Amino acid sequence: MFRPQIKVVDCTIRDGGLMNNHDFSDHFVRETYRALSEAGIDYMEIGYKNSRKLFSEKEFGKWKFCDDDHIRKVTEGIKSNTKISVMVDVGRVDIGDIKPKKDSPVDMIRVASYVKEVDKAISLVNHFADKGYETTVNIMAISKALDSELNEAFHQLEKECKAKVIYIVDSFGSLYQETIEFLVKKAKSIITSKEIGMHAHNNQQLAFGNTIEAIIHNANYLDATVFGLGRAAGNCPLELLIGFLKNPKFDIRPILDLISKEFVPLSKQLEWGYVIPYAICGMLDEHPKAALEMRQTAKKENYREFYESIKGKDLD
Amino acid sequence: MFRPQIKVVDCTIRDGGLMNNHDFSDHFVRETYRALSEAGIDYMEIGYKNSRKLFSEKEFGKWKFCDDDHIRKVTEGIKSNTKISVMVDVGRVDIGDIKPKKDSPVDMIRVASYVKEVDKAISLVNHFADKGYETTVNIMAISKALDSELNEAFHQLEKECKAKVIYIVDSFGSLYQETIEFLVKKAKSIITSKEIGMHAHNNQQLAFGNTIEAIIHNANYLDATVFGLGRAAGNCPLELLIGFLKNPKFDIRPILDLISKEFVPLSKQLEWGYVIPYAICGMLDEHPKAALEMRQTAKKENYREFYESIKGKDLD
Repeated sequence: MFRPQIKVVDCTIRDGGLMNNHDFSDHFVRETYRALSEAGIDYMEIGYKNSRKLFSEKEFGKWKFCDDDHIRKVTEGIKSNTKISVMVDVGRVDIGDIKPKKDSPVDMIRVASYVKEVDKAISLVNHFADKGYETTVNIMAISKALDSELNEAFHQLEKECKAKVIYIVDSFGSLYQETIEFLVKKAKSIITSKEIGMHAHNNQQLAFGNTIEAIIHNANYLDATVFGLGRAAGNCPLELLIGFLKNPKFDIRPILDLISKEFVPLSKQLEWGYVIPYAICGMLDEHPKAALEMRQTAKKENYREFYESIKGKDLD
Repeated sequence: MFRPQIKVVDCTIRDGGLMNNHDFSDHFVRETYRALSEAGIDYMEIGYKNSRKLFSEKEFGKWKFCDDDHIRKVTEGIKSNTKISVMVDVGRVDIGDIKPKKDSPVDMIRVASYVKEVDKAISLVNHFADKGYETTVNIMAISKALDSELNEAFHQLEKECKAKVIYIVDSFGSLYQETIEFLVKKAKSIITSKEIGMHAHNNQQLAFGNTIEAIIHNANYLDATVFGLGRAAGNCPLELLIGFLKNPKFDIRPILDLISKEFVPLSKQLEWGYVIPYAICGMLDEHPKAALEMRQTAKKENYREFYESIKGKDLD
C-alpha cells in the first residue's frame, strides 16, 4: 500500500552542481531529465536561480543561473510529467529575473534559508507564490538550530508563509534517526496546513535511512539524487528510494540505465559518496568545506590529522 | 549517556575474508588487531573454523581455518582487551578441532545457522559452551524466515541453548528499519535470558541505520567492520558505529589510521561497498552471488539486464 501524497524531488543537477560549479553538459542534463521522466519522478530540480550581479558566468556553468531558455533546450521534445524546480538562496536571487509562472518552464521555486533568515525566506516565497509558482522553504543546517528559534520559525512559517512544503535539511549529514523523528514530529505538530519535506546528506550513510524515518513520521516530500550525487558525501540515492516506495508509477529501470551510461563514467572524474573526511564532518556536525579542500591536497588520506583539526576547532 | 551492556564485535577479517578466500596477510590481520585493541573494540572475529576435510588449504587462506597457532602469531606482543572470536557454519566444522577454551586463544565461537538448522546449531553451541567458550547463534537469512518458524526457533533457543547472544542477520541487506524493529522486539519478547545481536549488510546503505535501529530496541551485540569491508556491499562501518556510541572507552583514531594505511590501498584491489548490482540484490532480497559473478564479466555495468534477470528469477 502506498501513500499517494508522497512526492519525490530529484535534485541531482542542483546539489550535484555544487561539485562542478554547476557546469553539467546539456547532454548530461537532458539525459537525466529523460530518465527521471520515464521513471515517473515528480520533480527535477535543475539548478540555482542566482543573480548574475553576484556570480560570473565565467566562473560558473549555466545551472547556477537556470535561464528559462536553457531549461527549455534540455527538456523540449521529451514526453514528461516531471515538473521543473529551481532553488534560490536568500540574498542571492534577483527577483526581477523571475518571470510570472505562465511565461516560464519552471513549476516550483524552493527557497533555501537558515533559521535566522526565515523572515526573508517568507517574503521571497510569498512573492514567488504570487507569481504563480509552487514554493517551498528549505531550512538548512537544522542540526545547528536552537530549539526555541526553530519553534518560533515553524509557527511563523505556518502563519505567514504561502509555501506548500517546509523542508528539514540535514546539511551536514549529522543527524541520526531519533533526531529525524523528533524534528519531523515537531514540524508536523506546528505546521498543519503544509507538507513536510526531507533533504538528507549522506556523510554517515544515513541519508536513505533518515529519509525512510521521515516517511514513517509522515513527511511527504522526499529529496533524492541519482547515484547519490551531491555535495561531498552526496544525498539519498534516488534508485534506493524508488526501490523502497511502492507507488506503481515509479520505474527504477530508466534510472539504472542512466547510472550505467552517465554516472559511472562521471564517478571516475568527480569524488562524492562515502569518503572518510566527509564522514568525520558528519559525525562532528560540521560543514564539509574543510574536507573538500583537504581531498585536493597531498594529505588527502591523513584522516587522523583531519579528525583532530575538526575536533579541535571549537576548543581553540 | 551510554549503555554499558553494548558490545562491539568487529568481523572485518571474517566477513571480509569472503571476498578474498580468507587470504589476508599476517601483517594485515595483525595491524587490524592492533588498531581494534587500541580503539577499545570488545571482540575481533578473525575468521572461520572450517574443517580441513571439507576445504583445501590450497584454495583458501589460513583465516578459513583459524588454527590457534596462527591466531597467536598475529596477536602476540600486542597489549589488548579485545577478545578473539571465530565463526563456524553448521555442518562445516570438525568439532575435534576445537580444544578446551583453557588451551586456546579463542574466547568466543559464533555458530551461523539458518532457521531450519537451529537444532544442529543448539547442539554445536552447547558443545562449545561446555568446552568453556562464550557462544552465539547467528540466524542467517532472517528475511526469508517464515514468522511461525522464527517464533518456534526463538522459543527453542531460549529454552535449550547455552548461547549468551542470539543474532539477527540481515544476510541480503534487504531489511528496512521497520522490520528491524519488528524482529528485535520479537526476539526480546521471547528470548529474555540472553542478549540480542545485530549483523547487518550494507546493500542499500542501511547497515549503520539498521544497527542504530537495533540499538534503539535494545540489541546489545553489534557487528561492524572496518571501512565496511565484507561480502559484496559489506557491513556496518565500524568507524561510523564508534562515532555514534558514547562509551568513552572507544577511540576512533586508531581505526582512522588503519583505514588510511591498510584499507584505502586494499579498496583499489577489492570491490566492496555501494555497487548497484549489490543494491539490486538488497532491494529484491536475494543473495549477492549473482552480482558478485556479473561484476567479473564485461557486462559488469549492465544494471538493467541484471535487474531483469533477478526480478524474473522467481517468475520462471
